[in-house]
Amino acid sequence: MPGSTRILGVDPGSQATGWAVVETGSRLRRVDSGVIRPGRGVELSARLLVIHDELTLVIERTAPTVMAIEDLFNAKNPRSSLVLGHARGAAMVAGARAALVVHEYAPAEIKRALTGNGQAAKEQVRFMVMRLLGLTDQPGLDESDALAVALAHQGRARFAAAGRGGMS
Amino acid sequence: MPGSTRILGVDPGSQATGWAVVETGSRLRRVDSGVIRPGRGVELSARLLVIHDELTLVIERTAPTVMAIEDLFNAKNPRSSLVLGHARGAAMVAGARAALVVHEYAPAEIKRALTGNGQAAKEQVRFMVMRLLGLTDQPGLDESDALAVALAHQGRARFAAAGRGGMS
Repeated sequence: MPGSTRILGVDPGSQATGWAVVETGSRLRRVDSGVIRPGRGVELSARLLVIHDELTLVIERTAPTVMAIEDLFNAKNPRSSLVLGHARGAAMVAGARAALVVHEYAPAEIKRALTGNGQAAKEQVRFMVMRLLGLTDQPGLDESDALAVALAHQGRARFAAAGRGGMS
Repeated sequence: MPGSTRILGVDPGSQATGWAVVETGSRLRRVDSGVIRPGRGVELSARLLVIHDELTLVIERTAPTVMAIEDLFNAKNPRSSLVLGHARGAAMVAGARAALVVHEYAPAEIKRALTGNGQAAKEQVRFMVMRLLGLTDQPGLDESDALAVALAHQGRARFAAAGRGGMS
């Protein structure tokens, strides 16, 4: 669609990585979304390869123009931040290889963009995701988080365009 | 060489990633080593892609049979642990794609394997790296750390073989 953008949203995790492709334009539309679960018994490097390769297939199939990724870090548990960094790294390599610009959003920024409240519960975020995209089936929370980061990027990009006098 | 193993050692960092390939057998030998510096002005996802792709070329050129990587995390700065995790993730994707088993070693474990002291200074580790490999030119510290993780793996693998009665 002319004037439309496809945003790939990614919510990385070493056990489950949510992904979602949202199309902007005259209306917001979910193109596709899902969850990558590399399997618990598999060693870390193999799980990272699965994340990278499945996201690469998603990018080839859905042709997004930009990538938005959740920038989570856990100050109380630096060890889990390190593990999470691996999954983000694998996802970002897939994005960079496809020449996508990668935007990072903190969890509070995503919640604020969707609900107006940086401390909103995941269920409230999902409610707004479903409402904005007109979804009737409730997505799982990993998928909902990936849709939310894509929508947070759409909100910020629209705001930036309005600030430049580009509001339509 | 029959009975020899090539170990790829990696010391990941978002600014500089040291790598080294060490061959074991009748004597220890450095096959090659270097440092990947993706450039400071480049965005994170592009830097990760450089790390992934350069390590992939190293693997194709030197044909290691196993990968050993430094498992560093900074409890005082969880933010830097997250950033470091990205570089490790990019490196591990390259290893997993080449079907290398990836072994992780904590910094203290590497220092102890090389010097007998888990708190040894980087310079002391470098001294032992040069001695074990018969190097006459002093490598930089990033390169020395990558050689050290490869040698730590060699030490542990040899010890494990001896424990199984496989000492030669």
